[in-house]
Amino acid sequence: MRGEGRLKFIGVVEESGDVSELDIFPEYCEGLYRLEDFSHIMVFYWLHLRDNQAHRSMVRVVPRRHHGAPEVGVFASRSPSRPNPIGFSVVELLKIESCKLLVKGLDAEDASPIIDIKPYIPRADSVPEARAPKWTLSGPPT
Amino acid sequence: MRGEGRLKFIGVVEESGDVSELDIFPEYCEGLYRLEDFSHIMVFYWLHLRDNQAHRSMVRVVPRRHHGAPEVGVFASRSPSRPNPIGFSVVELLKIESCKLLVKGLDAEDASPIIDIKPYIPRADSVPEARAPKWTLSGPPT
Repeated sequence: MRGEGRLKFIGVVEESGDVSELDIFPEYCEGLYRLEDFSHIMVFYWLHLRDNQAHRSMVRVVPRRHHGAPEVGVFASRSPSRPNPIGFSVVELLKIESCKLLVKGLDAEDASPIIDIKPYIPRADSVPEARAPKWTLSGPPT
Repeated sequence: MRGEGRLKFIGVVEESGDVSELDIFPEYCEGLYRLEDFSHIMVFYWLHLRDNQAHRSMVRVVPRRHHGAPEVGVFASRSPSRPNPIGFSVVELLKIESCKLLVKGLDAEDASPIIDIKPYIPRADSVPEARAPKWTLSGPPT
């Protein structure tokens, strides 16, 4: 049951920073209809700078942005070096203007391809009491 | 800046239900090291039954498991029919036994390939006050 999946890029991170601009390609733009009913969205993007054999072979990492983090398995980390370089962020949706989204809190590099957007549904996605180790509390959120 | 990304499957949903069993392939098993420090994880899987041209061409959908939902853009829905058939669930991690994970709350079909696992970090991923439209409150969480 080994196999592969093929992703089509649906847009691109045009400018990233505290506020980031996401450009959705015209053929997917209609997929944004009524997205403004949500205050937060989940952005799935492609960590294109890590899409190579070396970075995709990592199985253990030291989360270096988190002071005091031990070595952990790659799936116990949010490291961008991982078998499938999928980036994931929960962000605040500030504005939709035609095929452009302005969001707050995206930690992506400029020019990262976007692979999916899903609405954030607190009932399914919010677990405030989830337990996580102490090292996750220092440094940036992910 | 059109393009494609290539995903390698890292495991498979062996049995799904209220409690689901995930099998991680041996070559990725070490990536689970210290994952048990987290009570919840995010499972990214491949919606293999929707991986075809018809389902991947959807741009508008009616979320049919949610009574009263209007037609919305596919990115404003959690529909499994979408340009990139990426499934996403926040689940409770019950047990890790060698390369097998037992989790609670995964809404995946049996035999769905797994493409990534990330730890759930409440500081980054939990937004209890996020606004979502009323139709998201009826039916299953997603």
